[in-house]
Amino acid sequence: MEWTREKRYLPYSKWDAETLLDLQAEAANSAYQMHYHLHPISGLVNDPNGFSYFNGEYHLFYQSYPFGAVHGLKSWVHFKSQDLVHWINLGLAVKPDSMADSHGAYSGSAREIDGKLFLMYTGNHRDENWVRTPYQIGAWMDKDGVVKDKTVLFKNPDHITEHFRDPQILKENDTYYAILGAQDKAEKHGHIDVWKSKDLKNWEELGFLNLSDHDLGYMIECPNIVRVGGKVVVIFCPQGLDKKIADYDDIYPNMYVIADDIDFENHGLINPGPLHNLDEGFDVYATQAFNAPDGTAYEVSWVGLPDTTYPTDDENWANCLSQVKKLSIHDGKLIQEPVETIKSLRRNEEKVSGKTIKENTTGQYELKLNISANQTGTLHLAANDNLSESLQIKFDTNDGKLTLDRAQAGKKVAVDYGTTRFTSFTPHEDLKLDIFVDHSLVEIFVNDGEHVLTGRFFTDPVNQRIKFDQDTNYQGTFYNMETIL
Amino acid sequence: MEWTREKRYLPYSKWDAETLLDLQAEAANSAYQMHYHLHPISGLVNDPNGFSYFNGEYHLFYQSYPFGAVHGLKSWVHFKSQDLVHWINLGLAVKPDSMADSHGAYSGSAREIDGKLFLMYTGNHRDENWVRTPYQIGAWMDKDGVVKDKTVLFKNPDHITEHFRDPQILKENDTYYAILGAQDKAEKHGHIDVWKSKDLKNWEELGFLNLSDHDLGYMIECPNIVRVGGKVVVIFCPQGLDKKIADYDDIYPNMYVIADDIDFENHGLINPGPLHNLDEGFDVYATQAFNAPDGTAYEVSWVGLPDTTYPTDDENWANCLSQVKKLSIHDGKLIQEPVETIKSLRRNEEKVSGKTIKENTTGQYELKLNISANQTGTLHLAANDNLSESLQIKFDTNDGKLTLDRAQAGKKVAVDYGTTRFTSFTPHEDLKLDIFVDHSLVEIFVNDGEHVLTGRFFTDPVNQRIKFDQDTNYQGTFYNMETIL
Repeated sequence: MEWTREKRYLPYSKWDAETLLDLQAEAANSAYQMHYHLHPISGLVNDPNGFSYFNGEYHLFYQSYPFGAVHGLKSWVHFKSQDLVHWINLGLAVKPDSMADSHGAYSGSAREIDGKLFLMYTGNHRDENWVRTPYQIGAWMDKDGVVKDKTVLFKNPDHITEHFRDPQILKENDTYYAILGAQDKAEKHGHIDVWKSKDLKNWEELGFLNLSDHDLGYMIECPNIVRVGGKVVVIFCPQGLDKKIADYDDIYPNMYVIADDIDFENHGLINPGPLHNLDEGFDVYATQAFNAPDGTAYEVSWVGLPDTTYPTDDENWANCLSQVKKLSIHDGKLIQEPVETIKSLRRNEEKVSGKTIKENTTGQYELKLNISANQTGTLHLAANDNLSESLQIKFDTNDGKLTLDRAQAGKKVAVDYGTTRFTSFTPHEDLKLDIFVDHSLVEIFVNDGEHVLTGRFFTDPVNQRIKFDQDTNYQGTFYNMETIL
Repeated sequence: MEWTREKRYLPYSKWDAETLLDLQAEAANSAYQMHYHLHPISGLVNDPNGFSYFNGEYHLFYQSYPFGAVHGLKSWVHFKSQDLVHWINLGLAVKPDSMADSHGAYSGSAREIDGKLFLMYTGNHRDENWVRTPYQIGAWMDKDGVVKDKTVLFKNPDHITEHFRDPQILKENDTYYAILGAQDKAEKHGHIDVWKSKDLKNWEELGFLNLSDHDLGYMIECPNIVRVGGKVVVIFCPQGLDKKIADYDDIYPNMYVIADDIDFENHGLINPGPLHNLDEGFDVYATQAFNAPDGTAYEVSWVGLPDTTYPTDDENWANCLSQVKKLSIHDGKLIQEPVETIKSLRRNEEKVSGKTIKENTTGQYELKLNISANQTGTLHLAANDNLSESLQIKFDTNDGKLTLDRAQAGKKVAVDYGTTRFTSFTPHEDLKLDIFVDHSLVEIFVNDGEHVLTGRFFTDPVNQRIKFDQDTNYQGTFYNMETIL
């Protein structure tokens, strides 16, 4: 099937329901489908949206194109949860049904205001000449999940190009602020643009955030500001960033900066630090973070990259979301940990030992390892008999180096951007790994969340061996993880 | 919206995808929706189908009409599970896409044969004059969930009317048998018709099962034979049964008979006992049972009744399935118990005491009670402040009598068939209740499964008090139940 522009932007009402039911069944039956991470019901999933706490529950949406593994006409699909782990799928919530979002209800955020959930997002509109206008839209969701009263709040000011999107709604004292990804017209550089409003109706541009002294490429997407341990963390996705400024491997990185504080009125970070990669694996992008009412900072990521094809495209679905992680700061570094409640998914705790950790798994597990200091080796996940196909975790605790290698991990993904990812840690100490596998998704927490490596992999689903390449001193615990999605 | 015949039988391809997505969201957002029982993704659910063990997992399908709370063009939706509690929704599996099932892929069963799942079901075909032919169809599902090779196995023989449906495929030694609900042409009475085949292709009618000496009404639906504790249990739904033969309250009952054995070749039950109601609550029908490979007998029911409207019809969805129950026989009586693995859904165990058990719940819980002997009283579930709205469980352990009363339980359901249901137990002994509530569904296990009362109820979702009407001696444990669906 050829995905012409016309086809990708066909209204949902012009697709037939049998096709949709078939696509839903196809995505559900895939051996690569995740079962404890949010995944597509059909078609393509991208950015998490509207991550928030409302009416006593957590809410999360994702960008969805229901009719294939392509970036077509986007909408928001809604989930809610009491524990950030067990999610109820509430279905299509924000549709591209107004002039301002006629070509997609693009990414945005949400915040409980006066007993309703205020959604702030980018409406993608194109005119008959395919010229884009990005409208920033406000809408209100009531406790029954009904979204009403879409209003255009503002559009790109004269000095900003059509690349102006992904508003995060924030509140400081009595004032609302929004930050957006933006490209300036003069230099065509990427920025985070800061806006303010007293009433959510009248908005005023304050200016670009002083994220860095460097040029950060041609565009910044999905900016997020979250308060963590007395600091301010800015999470964002620079596009076209010079690798001399901050090194990265993926087509576009998801980065963060830690600052002492933020002065919204002067759109100024106080003492911003250097750029860091948020995730050191393969496929994390568009991370969205927010502070829950108790102040805790949580994040969730799209596991998928723009302008990238994945093997499940052939099955007409693609991508998923990461697990929700809790953020903290330790020694000036961002720590990303699983939420405590993910333990409720554990089944059949098993102490493991020996070279072969498991001859077989269901592909849905958590593996906690404490690898003793001063060893090198390779841990093979999703491995076949002779270890010729597997996802490899290579560790060298002498050098303090860990490599995630998917060169031999079945079907290829984005090989132009390399098949290995790498992180470093304190040498000559024990290495703690908390590895979550959900069929075609791996999330590796290194030393209690000092580093996280996330990635998709597409080994033959029958290969489910977990094995070290050589005798290794370690302590390990294996848990089957419950099916919840 | 008027549900004309034309509309109900419109091919799925003539519905638009946006309507379906809206219906899915509407069903998901309902406050009456279940969250640990199988429920509609959209529209109407009825009979469980194809309950089986295949490829190392349990499989279960249900009858689905996706476009509204009406009995329209039916298909099978597929679920699988490793533990009979956590189910993965695999989506639309058997569609009405051949001549023989042009007007509905109706109910049937499944059995693993030679590494594939053999599905045997009734194709509902109507000609241009709306004259029905019921085709019994065989199809094969492979390990990827693809259903192929639909073949018409046989149609109604001359002596049976168009009411000939719901085949259960069975195997005894080297021979396959099928039992079907049937109406004879001469007397227009309901029967269970027995067929045999050596090769699943050539089928021969053996004759009607000797279920009872009585006339069992004008039709029998959904017959099931299952071996339980050395006996044979026949579960079936007689329609039009004279209440003098076996008393019941629902529009149509779901009944069972226990026999010492069955002689398939002579279509004869050995020493069949009397008819009993399978469930003593309000809404159980079309129960499907099968023997797992280890011999254990499991059953699952439609919670919903034919020719009955429910309050959620206004939200364009209706009905659900019961939890899976394990069958055994004790003192000649059928015992129905929750499966052991349902305990994995328990969260936050809490010992409860006092007149008010809980001021509030999420509407999703298990409540285990041991009510001391020689007491009478009323337990109110889903109650408001002054107990004027609630689902009532009235107990009298002096008389050994328990009544489930939904007269004050919010929106009315099938009131022409009464608002109370009743069971009896040994007087002057403690009463053990294991009560599962899932928003608008209650399942009450009395004295370890000696009796089960299942029902839907539609109290205002904000009313979540659990309270005795008076001081009561009891021991109780309350568990929140996990959201898995």
